[in-house]
Amino acid sequence: LQEQEYEQLRTLLEVIHPGQLADILEAMPPKKRMQLWMLVPESQEAETLSFLHDEVRNSLIITMKPDELVAAVEQMDANDLAYIFEEFPEHVRQSIEEKLPDEILERLETNLSFEEGTAGRLMSQDVITVRNDVTLEVVLRYLQLHEELPDYTDGLMVIDRAGFYQGKLLLNKVLTHNREILVKDVMEKQQAILATDDEHAVTLFFEQFHLVSAAVVDLNNRLIGRITMDDAMEILRAETDRTLLGRDGLDEEEDLFAPVISSTKRRTVWLGINLITAFLAAWVIGIYTDTLDKIVALAVLMPVVASMGGIAGSQTLTLTIRGLALDQITSGNRFWLARKEIFIGILNGLLWAVVIAVMAWLWFQNIGISMVIAAAIIINLVAAAASGIAIPLILQRMHIDPALSGAVILTTVTDVVGFMSFLGLATYFLL
Amino acid sequence: LQEQEYEQLRTLLEVIHPGQLADILEAMPPKKRMQLWMLVPESQEAETLSFLHDEVRNSLIITMKPDELVAAVEQMDANDLAYIFEEFPEHVRQSIEEKLPDEILERLETNLSFEEGTAGRLMSQDVITVRNDVTLEVVLRYLQLHEELPDYTDGLMVIDRAGFYQGKLLLNKVLTHNREILVKDVMEKQQAILATDDEHAVTLFFEQFHLVSAAVVDLNNRLIGRITMDDAMEILRAETDRTLLGRDGLDEEEDLFAPVISSTKRRTVWLGINLITAFLAAWVIGIYTDTLDKIVALAVLMPVVASMGGIAGSQTLTLTIRGLALDQITSGNRFWLARKEIFIGILNGLLWAVVIAVMAWLWFQNIGISMVIAAAIIINLVAAAASGIAIPLILQRMHIDPALSGAVILTTVTDVVGFMSFLGLATYFLL
Repeated sequence: LQEQEYEQLRTLLEVIHPGQLADILEAMPPKKRMQLWMLVPESQEAETLSFLHDEVRNSLIITMKPDELVAAVEQMDANDLAYIFEEFPEHVRQSIEEKLPDEILERLETNLSFEEGTAGRLMSQDVITVRNDVTLEVVLRYLQLHEELPDYTDGLMVIDRAGFYQGKLLLNKVLTHNREILVKDVMEKQQAILATDDEHAVTLFFEQFHLVSAAVVDLNNRLIGRITMDDAMEILRAETDRTLLGRDGLDEEEDLFAPVISSTKRRTVWLGINLITAFLAAWVIGIYTDTLDKIVALAVLMPVVASMGGIAGSQTLTLTIRGLALDQITSGNRFWLARKEIFIGILNGLLWAVVIAVMAWLWFQNIGISMVIAAAIIINLVAAAASGIAIPLILQRMHIDPALSGAVILTTVTDVVGFMSFLGLATYFLL
Repeated sequence: LQEQEYEQLRTLLEVIHPGQLADILEAMPPKKRMQLWMLVPESQEAETLSFLHDEVRNSLIITMKPDELVAAVEQMDANDLAYIFEEFPEHVRQSIEEKLPDEILERLETNLSFEEGTAGRLMSQDVITVRNDVTLEVVLRYLQLHEELPDYTDGLMVIDRAGFYQGKLLLNKVLTHNREILVKDVMEKQQAILATDDEHAVTLFFEQFHLVSAAVVDLNNRLIGRITMDDAMEILRAETDRTLLGRDGLDEEEDLFAPVISSTKRRTVWLGINLITAFLAAWVIGIYTDTLDKIVALAVLMPVVASMGGIAGSQTLTLTIRGLALDQITSGNRFWLARKEIFIGILNGLLWAVVIAVMAWLWFQNIGISMVIAAAIIINLVAAAASGIAIPLILQRMHIDPALSGAVILTTVTDVVGFMSFLGLATYFLL
């Protein structure tokens, strides 16, 4: 870079929004990313780090000197810090703890006292509270004492004299209502989130009520923090990424721009798992080598049976996983759904069995092969529908994320059932 | 239902949050859903409709009498109404237009004047604006004149005397700053969204800056509306649904609880498309029936080659589609990425070629078969990586959504390349 261009870049890096800077960094190959990061001014570092995805953030953090890191995290909110704190090496954690102001350290410890993935770990303790028995005039004067309100303050949290959560006073109301009115008469009785609730429940809560911020309370209904929509959106994004990527055995933190070696390592495990299922399918075919030896047309058609089952099963599986994620599947409608999916399997099975039988007949002019493939298609599509709904339900009960392993198990079932029914029926009827 | 239970249900339906009611309705089989909808009080109908997904909303709307429908939509915001308006039958649209108050009708027409999928169609015209040359005191007095502010008003839109957009005045600032200060001295110079921007750009804008609301301007920078985070979240949800479901040929509006016949119809098309690709693979195998006739072990192993290619390609494809959706893939890093993915394909190909060759040797004790399958695995994994990145890029350039058709095309490639390389090499070297 020319000296002058370099100066322009430094100036640009100082004024750019940290969210935009994070996006630019994420869309860079690792080496260039490091180079750019070196140029980011210290004043931007903390905010930018909090916008980055874990994988990218960690790759940048390890390049920073402990002092620089401490300087950056000092400007972070306690909850953002809690989120990354446990990934730092021991000595970095110690020097951070030594240098942090007492107040922030105390907040950090509160966040860390809740398990990862709970609302308590996620919440910010930067909350403005008002008492329910004061007037809006008092609230207005109180707000004037603040230099600034925390981001996403759409309302103030209302507590009673004893510190118990009562509801939320929207800023809207403060501004539009008569100033003699008491807080308790205009506040919303919005439900609070329990600190021990898990993140997934938090996103559903935000999505259901379209909230900007929500109070977090402890088991005694004492207000201890709040969660804002930007955090809820990030969890939502991470969850959908997990569902989307999990299906291909990819980590939700998978970085399109990670170095070749680490990408290869991550992906190879999944290929290994799938190899086992592929050999299972091969083993099933192996049972019928005598049959294949005699009727080679079977070898030509057998992938059709397996593939149709895989596609149909995958449709049911994806819908079921999504229904579970949105909490739409309950014990009340589970059987109704299973019956519906199996019924669709039968209808589609009948339809495509006829089409495939005709195509097979046109190709091989053998009525026996046509009958056998038709029967195998029906069997496999029904098995696919049943597995598509049963596998995620069973996995969820076993506390295994169906987004991660559901598709492999399903394909194993449809391959095995497909090959076995097709080649098995052929062995029985055609030899 | 007993009379008393019925009464309890009616009371419950009157007080429940429309977002919750929408969730409950969506998780119900169609018949029960209709029955419950009949009981929903008119005062709740409009809000609940705006929380429902299209498919479910439309299924309920068609059961409503025109009068009832008009009564419901009269309470809707113009942009919510614009969203569903074009799906009504002609006579319903006419009676709505006749009965709507002039002001709302005018707003509806403005929204409808922008194309579907643009910011202009999406925006709400319910905006509170202030001039940039007044003091906060004036703003406060002006706000007191309102009974209530629109939802998600985190700030007021600032315009100059001529109506051009200047920035956003956060309510935070109004409440905490000295009242003598001028609006222009405390407002944020937040960028606005162009009315002709597409929805996808809108979600990226909200995600990048974590906004609650943003101004919408016309080409002359005149303020004409605003978009709020609840709309951005809904588009985001719809987009990720499209990516997630599109892969299995499912509509993003696919309803887990839709009637059997309509579900079967929707899904059967996808099975048909896949059947074509399955028969294409079968046709490739058909070329080599002589070879298969002589070495039946090939029939046993061939699904392994195809399946490993499918899995590896699918990993690259998913990452590429996601990278495109997040605007991370640019002309600058495209070739870097392609090179990286192909390199991963080579590494994983070499690794798994060895493993599979050993397994094949243990099974069939034939060094020729082991060599051939090893070569085929390497070829197919490299082809898979190249297609995984090329297919979505090509589809996007052709303005076809890669989330919808990418996976089918990829599987076709990996099946054809897999079978052809494995059986082709075997024919050449082993016969």
